[in-house]
Amino acid sequence: MTAPGKPSEIRIVLVAARNPLNIGAAARAMSNFGFRRLRVVNPYHEAFREARSAVGAAHVLAAAEEFETVAEAVADCSLVIGTTAIGQRQVHHAIQPLKDGARLILRQAQRKNAARVALLFGSEKTGLSNDDFSHCHWLLHIPTSEDNSSMNLGQSVAVCLYELTREAGFGSQRIKDATRTTDQTQAPAAATDVERISILLLDAMLASGYLKRKPTADAEARLRRLVRRLNISARDVPAWLSILRQILWKCQRPENKSE
Amino acid sequence: MTAPGKPSEIRIVLVAARNPLNIGAAARAMSNFGFRRLRVVNPYHEAFREARSAVGAAHVLAAAEEFETVAEAVADCSLVIGTTAIGQRQVHHAIQPLKDGARLILRQAQRKNAARVALLFGSEKTGLSNDDFSHCHWLLHIPTSEDNSSMNLGQSVAVCLYELTREAGFGSQRIKDATRTTDQTQAPAAATDVERISILLLDAMLASGYLKRKPTADAEARLRRLVRRLNISARDVPAWLSILRQILWKCQRPENKSE
Repeated sequence: MTAPGKPSEIRIVLVAARNPLNIGAAARAMSNFGFRRLRVVNPYHEAFREARSAVGAAHVLAAAEEFETVAEAVADCSLVIGTTAIGQRQVHHAIQPLKDGARLILRQAQRKNAARVALLFGSEKTGLSNDDFSHCHWLLHIPTSEDNSSMNLGQSVAVCLYELTREAGFGSQRIKDATRTTDQTQAPAAATDVERISILLLDAMLASGYLKRKPTADAEARLRRLVRRLNISARDVPAWLSILRQILWKCQRPENKSE
Repeated sequence: MTAPGKPSEIRIVLVAARNPLNIGAAARAMSNFGFRRLRVVNPYHEAFREARSAVGAAHVLAAAEEFETVAEAVADCSLVIGTTAIGQRQVHHAIQPLKDGARLILRQAQRKNAARVALLFGSEKTGLSNDDFSHCHWLLHIPTSEDNSSMNLGQSVAVCLYELTREAGFGSQRIKDATRTTDQTQAPAAATDVERISILLLDAMLASGYLKRKPTADAEARLRRLVRRLNISARDVPAWLSILRQILWKCQRPENKSE
């Protein structure tokens, strides 16, 4: 499985981005989440050129389209969404928190007569202008702390694209492959193994003199509860049995024969 | 409302980060999402010093704690989570996709005898080492495209912290405040207003000669459907009425009087 069908077609539009590192970071996030259509409006040309070397995002940057105005960049799109940190602004658009907004976008992008969607991000310093907003149907807002709502451009793009692909099921196969050898990690040990471990430990406690130093009426039951609370997994049973047998062997040797 | 209670207490641990911009970006994301406990393990000192100037994250960086080893950095934590892009690795830990992993972390962080949680991020080049992993209870993975799973450090931190605060309800008040003047945006126009607009338009079509040029049997019904599909909002009614009245007035003037 690679990118999800339609969301990857969403146009990511950077308006007046100034910092090559941010353009590169936006492209890298696009590559990470399987988006490929980058548009830049009126970037500093120096910045745009520098950005083309961004790690692992060469194909996104090479295919990026450049426009003079927002109007031209969204001309072929039927759903245009702006992003905003809100800040001190009064806004004359409906604003959706990212979670709800992403759902709205996906619903439009995935239906039969799919809307062609553009998602706009403003410049590092000022975000999108009111003029940029006037091209938008509604605005998207990443919920952040009251104390600092101004996010880095590359990070905003990453968070938005993460939310847009959150339900896409990326990576589940990769997790399966990477953990195939440890699939049994979570399976708990059988009761008979837990009991063998308990008995070995009890023997070691006896042999080491622990039970003589701290005698208790219900030592065995307490130990059994202690061991069960460890939630030992099936795969770890052999290791514990082997460790405890060695310790017990050592404890049971007469002292003068140690080492 | 500021930060959510417990998640903000999660320790964000950067292991061997090399790039001051990334340390700064991680701190900025923490500030954006209301986290405040940054720990750095064995950073390049030059990088760490430079990072202290990151935009809007001064308080996070000023309070950052420095450690020589991962063991020391997580010593007071009872739940230690590593992050991994997986890549070509075989991993001997359980791996959770971010969505599920965040839920597990929050459940532990929010319960009565809350676990003190550390979330580890590796260096830009190599991520966390197997030795770093050995301090972790399980691993967290951001689902990404198969083609490029290697994320930028600052962006990974931003995405993880976004997911951890996704249900916290940040920003809903801010959205309300910013759009207070446009609360009625979504309220649809009353039928009587829609009808007034339809009639004005019909009159303008008549006066302009449109209906003579393109006569249809059911012109009025078609226009009514057209206007209703516009979904005009209540707040926009006065503007449309005023525009149409002016147009109609102009259309109805005898031609020789048009200036």
